[in-house]
Amino acid sequence: MDRAEAEALDRTDPLAAFRVRFHVGDTGGAIYMDGNSLGRPAEEVEAAISAAVIEWERRLVGGWEEWIDLPARVGDRLGRLVGAAPGQTLVCDSTTLNLYKVVSAAVAHQPGRREVLAVTDDFPTDRYVLQSIAEGRGKKLRLVDGTEDAIEAALSERTAVVCLSHVHFTTGRRLDGARITTAAQEHGALVIWDLAHSAGAVPVDLDGWGADLAVGCTYKYLNSGPGAPGFVYVAQRHHGRLRQPIWGWFGQADQFEMGERYEPAAGIRSYLTGTPGIIALRAVDAAIGVTEEAGLERLWAKSQALTDLLIERIAARLIPLGAQLATPTGSRGAHVSVRHPEAWRWCRALIEGELVIGDFRPPDVIRLGPAPLYTRFVDCFDAVDRMAATLEAGLERIDPGKGRVT
Amino acid sequence: MDRAEAEALDRTDPLAAFRVRFHVGDTGGAIYMDGNSLGRPAEEVEAAISAAVIEWERRLVGGWEEWIDLPARVGDRLGRLVGAAPGQTLVCDSTTLNLYKVVSAAVAHQPGRREVLAVTDDFPTDRYVLQSIAEGRGKKLRLVDGTEDAIEAALSERTAVVCLSHVHFTTGRRLDGARITTAAQEHGALVIWDLAHSAGAVPVDLDGWGADLAVGCTYKYLNSGPGAPGFVYVAQRHHGRLRQPIWGWFGQADQFEMGERYEPAAGIRSYLTGTPGIIALRAVDAAIGVTEEAGLERLWAKSQALTDLLIERIAARLIPLGAQLATPTGSRGAHVSVRHPEAWRWCRALIEGELVIGDFRPPDVIRLGPAPLYTRFVDCFDAVDRMAATLEAGLERIDPGKGRVT
Repeated sequence: MDRAEAEALDRTDPLAAFRVRFHVGDTGGAIYMDGNSLGRPAEEVEAAISAAVIEWERRLVGGWEEWIDLPARVGDRLGRLVGAAPGQTLVCDSTTLNLYKVVSAAVAHQPGRREVLAVTDDFPTDRYVLQSIAEGRGKKLRLVDGTEDAIEAALSERTAVVCLSHVHFTTGRRLDGARITTAAQEHGALVIWDLAHSAGAVPVDLDGWGADLAVGCTYKYLNSGPGAPGFVYVAQRHHGRLRQPIWGWFGQADQFEMGERYEPAAGIRSYLTGTPGIIALRAVDAAIGVTEEAGLERLWAKSQALTDLLIERIAARLIPLGAQLATPTGSRGAHVSVRHPEAWRWCRALIEGELVIGDFRPPDVIRLGPAPLYTRFVDCFDAVDRMAATLEAGLERIDPGKGRVT
Repeated sequence: MDRAEAEALDRTDPLAAFRVRFHVGDTGGAIYMDGNSLGRPAEEVEAAISAAVIEWERRLVGGWEEWIDLPARVGDRLGRLVGAAPGQTLVCDSTTLNLYKVVSAAVAHQPGRREVLAVTDDFPTDRYVLQSIAEGRGKKLRLVDGTEDAIEAALSERTAVVCLSHVHFTTGRRLDGARITTAAQEHGALVIWDLAHSAGAVPVDLDGWGADLAVGCTYKYLNSGPGAPGFVYVAQRHHGRLRQPIWGWFGQADQFEMGERYEPAAGIRSYLTGTPGIIALRAVDAAIGVTEEAGLERLWAKSQALTDLLIERIAARLIPLGAQLATPTGSRGAHVSVRHPEAWRWCRALIEGELVIGDFRPPDVIRLGPAPLYTRFVDCFDAVDRMAATLEAGLERIDPGKGRVT
């Protein structure tokens, strides 16, 4: 493949027109390959935030008549992007907090089983939440390799809960959601899916998989802003059976009765806790609208084509320079990672040189997330060229400095 | 007092100039007496939200180099408003979630004590969080009257934790923070203060009281927006001793090392959990700036004068019509409440008639929160007149309808 072929792909890209709505100029600056860490704002999202501020100013406390339903309404809309029928998804709190709620609920529901199963190198917050709950409840946290075979082999009648990232945050490996869900349930375990690196880019079919519980993030492919709220899914059949531990006034059955005893609200609303951030919810709502307009099918098709191109160019340009592809060529998500012994300095050189913005992930990975809403094929082509040129120029002069935060 | 006297107070009000910055016109519409439920946006806050969106758009993931410190930086700034030296306060998550963290930490730290002490009619989320933790840990939740004497009488060597609102959400009764803190600690209990109805309007001196733990809210007198994040305070001496249960990547000692085991960060940062909402934090930061500019001393002086006027006018106009003052004339916060058997219909009539926006609180209270940054003395005067006229006109025609949410 040469650059002209990448340009040709851009010319026929049905999503090409979305790019200008994300304030992406042809300015010759760094190529942003970090949409899987923090997505860009669309014009519609910026407008929604401004409108929410005006709404606050004008409606004041009366705005709550409408705002009170936003976590569930935006949740239903988000649910459609991950295969969840209405009434099972909320947008609220953070991914970490939502994970804490559902892991706690699931573990408490399985008192006779002592193992919590997860993947050795899964995202830190997932492992830490699992640690805290496992230690607090006298369970054993069992960590295994992140392959379907390894996970299935570890399942037993001792397994209380399995908690897995659908798409792995470093490698981009994508697990078979239906297969693992079925296998775990055959052993009587509950399955929790972390959809942080899937929602908005990768097909997910929670209801179709028969999933039990899920959480995810809206600031990556869903472009809702830094620290935008997370989401939580609880399958209908678990409503009223599983119970999350953080009892707050938004999860109370009759919130404004302010009754003496906590009685969990019916349905998914019992997973609400404190007062939800309304401006942030308006942003998520608008951002979902942009994703709906593009259509998940087209986003996934483009995402696969972008990562195909990346993988081909990595093979052509970076592997000869000592890098390795860290992402499976088979079942993968919407990002691609490369390993290199000097990944940390390499990533710094790319960022400081205003060449490519990617993510370093310890110990030796650079992660490239070409968000399909606003990333071009030539961006992927050029990014790999710049990465190659940076390696060729040598990394000795790069100060390893202090950690960069992404 | 007549209306001319109220006008005279407005003419000499040193904070009068702040009102226009809150988009409050002299439009003859409803008088907003609900700043203790949801504060108004200042121009500076709106500008900060717009700037945060631009910052997201331009800096993208690189913004985290600065954003990562915002919960602690804005926390330190908020801490100064509640008497907390730097390094003890974070702005993050919601009040409910922060309460869950500190109650859990405090209860776990007192394994030999079986009582959790709180006030019978305290704010629902506080009671529900305490219920969930007490039930989960086999503790007894003991509820007592909300007076200093009743609380002190209930303290014993069985008391693990005392959790109290500094200013009561319904009555506005203000507890003696120093006295209760000392008394509880003499019995070996840990004290948690909920400052939701204090922060930004009422003097609080956490370090001076020798407080252990506190939480609070930024969307009331701190005017940071609907569902803006809460705050949490943990006294320096408890850092590294108490441990909160929600282990997330933002509370990890070396977050981007992404190490295998959770190791809580030093100091207050171990009370962080998931990714904080950055746009909301920028709003809180700007809102605190407005409060700092006004000065807490002047805000408290004006607040007392406003509530003095309300109390006088309630005595003159509403008590003859069958209402009662629900707020102590002595130690109180920044809002005033009245009881009336028809409070629900009365509150609806006032809102639907675009007369006065206050809060109904079950079973029979209307709450008036004249936020000192943007409420005039004539507003308080007129609000009571309108409340009287509404009662005089009779409430029979008012449809009790569906609950209003505030």
